[in-house]
Amino acid sequence: MVRIGIVNVTGYMGAEAARLLHAHPEVELTSVTGRSAAGKPLGEVFPHLAPLGLTVAEELGEVDAIVSALPHAASAKALLPYIERGLPVVDLSADFRLRRVEEYEPWYGKHPAPELLAQAVYGLPELHRDEIAAAKLVASPGCHATAAILALAPAVKAGLIEPDIVVDSKTGVSGAGRTLGLSYHFSEANEGVSAYGLGGHRQLPEMTQELGALCEAPAPRITFVPHLVPMTRGILVTCYATLRGESTGATDRIRDLYRDFYRESPFVRVVDEPPATKQTLGSNRCFLYPTVDERTGRLIVVSCLDNLTKGGAGQGVQCLNLMLGLPESTGLDGTALYP
Amino acid sequence: MVRIGIVNVTGYMGAEAARLLHAHPEVELTSVTGRSAAGKPLGEVFPHLAPLGLTVAEELGEVDAIVSALPHAASAKALLPYIERGLPVVDLSADFRLRRVEEYEPWYGKHPAPELLAQAVYGLPELHRDEIAAAKLVASPGCHATAAILALAPAVKAGLIEPDIVVDSKTGVSGAGRTLGLSYHFSEANEGVSAYGLGGHRQLPEMTQELGALCEAPAPRITFVPHLVPMTRGILVTCYATLRGESTGATDRIRDLYRDFYRESPFVRVVDEPPATKQTLGSNRCFLYPTVDERTGRLIVVSCLDNLTKGGAGQGVQCLNLMLGLPESTGLDGTALYP
Amino acid sequence: MVRIGIVNVTGYMGAEAARLLHAHPEVELTSVTGRSAAGKPLGEVFPHLAPLGLTVAEELGEVDAIVSALPHAASAKALLPYIERGLPVVDLSADFRLRRVEEYEPWYGKHPAPELLAQAVYGLPELHRDEIAAAKLVASPGCHATAAILALAPAVKAGLIEPDIVVDSKTGVSGAGRTLGLSYHFSEANEGVSAYGLGGHRQLPEMTQELGALCEAPAPRITFVPHLVPMTRGILVTCYATLRGESTGATDRIRDLYRDFYRESPFVRVVDEPPATKQTLGSNRCFLYPTVDERTGRLIVVSCLDNLTKGGAGQGVQCLNLMLGLPESTGLDGTALYP
Amino acid sequence: MVRIGIVNVTGYMGAEAARLLHAHPEVELTSVTGRSAAGKPLGEVFPHLAPLGLTVAEELGEVDAIVSALPHAASAKALLPYIERGLPVVDLSADFRLRRVEEYEPWYGKHPAPELLAQAVYGLPELHRDEIAAAKLVASPGCHATAAILALAPAVKAGLIEPDIVVDSKTGVSGAGRTLGLSYHFSEANEGVSAYGLGGHRQLPEMTQELGALCEAPAPRITFVPHLVPMTRGILVTCYATLRGESTGATDRIRDLYRDFYRESPFVRVVDEPPATKQTLGSNRCFLYPTVDERTGRLIVVSCLDNLTKGGAGQGVQCLNLMLGLPESTGLDGTALYP
Repeated sequence: MVRIGIVNVTGYMGAEAARLLHAHPEVELTSVTGRSAAGKPLGEVFPHLAPLGLTVAEELGEVDAIVSALPHAASAKALLPYIERGLPVVDLSADFRLRRVEEYEPWYGKHPAPELLAQAVYGLPELHRDEIAAAKLVASPGCHATAAILALAPAVKAGLIEPDIVVDSKTGVSGAGRTLGLSYHFSEANEGVSAYGLGGHRQLPEMTQELGALCEAPAPRITFVPHLVPMTRGILVTCYATLRGESTGATDRIRDLYRDFYRESPFVRVVDEPPATKQTLGSNRCFLYPTVDERTGRLIVVSCLDNLTKGGAGQGVQCLNLMLGLPESTGLDGTALYP
Repeated sequence: MVRIGIVNVTGYMGAEAARLLHAHPEVELTSVTGRSAAGKPLGEVFPHLAPLGLTVAEELGEVDAIVSALPHAASAKALLPYIERGLPVVDLSADFRLRRVEEYEPWYGKHPAPELLAQAVYGLPELHRDEIAAAKLVASPGCHATAAILALAPAVKAGLIEPDIVVDSKTGVSGAGRTLGLSYHFSEANEGVSAYGLGGHRQLPEMTQELGALCEAPAPRITFVPHLVPMTRGILVTCYATLRGESTGATDRIRDLYRDFYRESPFVRVVDEPPATKQTLGSNRCFLYPTVDERTGRLIVVSCLDNLTKGGAGQGVQCLNLMLGLPESTGLDGTALYP
Repeated sequence: MVRIGIVNVTGYMGAEAARLLHAHPEVELTSVTGRSAAGKPLGEVFPHLAPLGLTVAEELGEVDAIVSALPHAASAKALLPYIERGLPVVDLSADFRLRRVEEYEPWYGKHPAPELLAQAVYGLPELHRDEIAAAKLVASPGCHATAAILALAPAVKAGLIEPDIVVDSKTGVSGAGRTLGLSYHFSEANEGVSAYGLGGHRQLPEMTQELGALCEAPAPRITFVPHLVPMTRGILVTCYATLRGESTGATDRIRDLYRDFYRESPFVRVVDEPPATKQTLGSNRCFLYPTVDERTGRLIVVSCLDNLTKGGAGQGVQCLNLMLGLPESTGLDGTALYP
Repeated sequence: MVRIGIVNVTGYMGAEAARLLHAHPEVELTSVTGRSAAGKPLGEVFPHLAPLGLTVAEELGEVDAIVSALPHAASAKALLPYIERGLPVVDLSADFRLRRVEEYEPWYGKHPAPELLAQAVYGLPELHRDEIAAAKLVASPGCHATAAILALAPAVKAGLIEPDIVVDSKTGVSGAGRTLGLSYHFSEANEGVSAYGLGGHRQLPEMTQELGALCEAPAPRITFVPHLVPMTRGILVTCYATLRGESTGATDRIRDLYRDFYRESPFVRVVDEPPATKQTLGSNRCFLYPTVDERTGRLIVVSCLDNLTKGGAGQGVQCLNLMLGLPESTGLDGTALYP
């Protein structure tokens, strides 16, 4: 059994990683850390994790691979020693997602370990399967970015759309984490929808980097606006871009192209009916629904997933599987919890 | 006291009209109809309306003005005799919203009274205040359309944007009415977001008609995608269009232009912070937040309102006030219920 | 116009008082305070209250009567000078609800002004209408307590039940106020139900005091357990007690007795179908549904209301009306927002 | 691999059984039926179940054991031939829960196969583990009943409480199934709490039967009131009964007694902090929190579980495991989905 450690298990992303690794048949979760809760049984912080029988430690014990659920900056710093030792590391934070430090710093501030950027791989298996399998340091993508990039990659790569894209995202509140804030206070968030990040959201450069790499210059110009909706989990992204060439009857052709693109990807499903985030609850799946608005010649792609699973810890485990030489979907083929 | 009757009080729109008219100081709600519930006390259908002391009738009694909350087609048919008698009529259905029968029929089927279209006025007071005041037949706009048109009118009229517009709407479930359906079953709708109407939604032609009337040809090409979010009331629309001319520093200028445009409109507030639908709950207000994405040169306008109030019965009462020679906001200046 | 001031408008109870007083035809809300937000426009703290045009002050201006929405202890302290000046004061906190300081201190700690307890009146108009009308200091009851006392008073007074009562309450999250806490974090509170206050809840002594005053000694032995449910507003209390005497056919008789008891109370409705909290949303009404479980000879009474309105600021305004010599329901007869 | 068939997979209970059996390492779900959807791919009815690759059939294929998710009466009828053939059958309906036909018929109407009642076992493994292991026909308990019986069994068996019990239950809406109804329409159920079944609820006789069997006559007199709360999954039951003997300091003693009682039961956890339904989401666990209200000498037991899992299909699979000679928790040890 490969022994896995989770750094910072006390947030939602860490807890989701623990849930998934506990159910994983080929690895064993042996060590979890969390500064504020160090010394407590994990079941005291999260009663649903009591069956794991673990105690939250200050530092990781002996492990064979690591998943970090620390926030950015703190994550890079904490992972440095393990990366240097050559341990396989999946970082769920943003620290190693952007290839160039110049892209990172305007959004996140000073990078704690820019020298490591060169060896990090962007952990979206659907685009970087082989690189991930060969990597020691994988940066699991952001939740909005995962949904948007999967929605747009086939169209961008095939040159189907103008490089002028609107990404309108609707996310559940768990994406904001477990840290308290007035916007996430039940009585404020419940029964309301609002837009945020209108001045620019940190997951935008991931989208630009990954989609830009799939096409000729210039990089796509993306307007990205996330919205907070009153549910716990789930992201639904609606992408809009003008189609190049004939739009009449294009939907079927594009849906075929999408199916081809994701033929080897067990977690991406191109569907014929508009999907709902609920269909992905707790699962590692992403549903894509491309369709053409023939009145305006626009491609619309609806994409949805669970922000903590395929948009977070599930994708991290998917990468970990690849890094450990396991089939990509090991321990991840549970279906959604429905309803 | 002006005596008002509501046709079809037994749906959500009718019940909201009853709530507002009950609180109105200058009119009296004296008669309500509803086929299936005819003969029952209104308080049996809607316990919260028991204090009104009304009984649901098969036909309206003697009234001075009418609000219809029937569905399209049924509404035009039921209103015909009253319109012929010259009674002031506010129709909350779609029957008289589109000026040309050729626009109506592809979306709604055969029009029951096309001869009346010429005299009907689109009941958006912010654009048609004087015509509404002079009209006998007013068609209260759709909920998405109200939010989108108010969001875009100033920019379209001023020629600020290219006529290529994305309207992404997020609506609460009450917009689907009281008729049962699997999509609106609690266990299906709760904790999920989905897109619908991807093949084209009936409120699109209203947007095209009204925004098209504000600008030179050609009419704006609008892609409109509504989304169902797990809350009861509220619509938030996010509109995207490419700005003509310089975008740097444009936000303030555009916000001023919006404030000027709505200077005489008591229910539209242009705000400096992104609004939430919750801030409009049960009120007749619409909040607008225009901002510029300088990275891409796009204007983004966030617009929100309560779909049953400003997006429905509240706007109907606003029109009724104008038709009756009352101040536009009579009986409508209550603040939102918050939280 | 009577000028009213609200002390501490920046919580949910204060904001609800502002909404109701703004809609009140016989008083004017002229002054609002709130330590942390002093100097800010009220519309900056609560955008939905922007139409009131008020600025949050450090201290109240010149007013004729006061509503305090401060927490306990702070409230008594802040109100002292106004009470001494003889201004009519409605206190929404718990400071003046318990007649005896020995009842107060085990639950709330040292009382800041025990000498005032003698003149304070428990602000439940359905039980103390005349005393409230004659009082200068009225303590508006707790939200659970209002629901439970109204549910049980007729039965206790008539000696119908054994003095051994279970009160099981289900409350929306807004009752916990605007102060952040992990239990009220959206992702924790949403899609979950939990019991709290199992070691004893502060509103228990109010119930014992008020119901005890209606019957011969000994005072009723009440077990009270509140539960947090995932909604914003509303309380539903289910009360259980063994019926004295014959239970067969008792339901009708008891419902008549309840209707008699509340004949003069415009806000209490005894209903023939089990009510839902939703039917009271934003209104000042309380619905009561007494029924007998003939299998076990138990009286069950279901009671529901909006915790911020009839269970809080609405009841405060109802008391204020009585203190000002106005009809009890002035400004409070709006129907619930539904759905 | 043991081949399992699900009768009536198209409701929520059937779909939950499919989810759990798909994840089960020792059985294979090979056949599913559903009258209305016969012939359709399962993934068309439930997109989240598409990965199972099954088609809904009119009749079960060749299987080794059966789970029925049909409604009562229909279930007994459909299962008859399989029971006669001696196939292991778990019935999730109520048809075989009550031992005596005289208990069944007042609540459910004529029993379609009363001759089978004698061989049926009540499928609560915590009370009937050995009988279930030896049975061919097991009736999986109701969701409220599971929560209430687990909450009370240790106290009743030990003679700790008077046989006069209040069971106040709060359930998510999925318990009402997938069939449409106004009470389960999103806009009606959301943001509201209501009591139902006040004239008597069908799961009451299960509680009386099972708890009565644990104590001397007379059977406990139970008042049971379920409440609908606005969430999809989860049941929290609060039980109240007067303690016999000394209550001071009794909580610890009782908690120990509960822990002893459930020592061999992997899915029941006696906890030291009040639990939330959310901690059980999608898992087969039941959390119990017994505590004593020393003021009134009452035992309070809070019990919570997921109504579709431990309160439904999960418990069915737990029984199936026992019937197949597998460890009780095979395929069921996943932790809850949190948050």
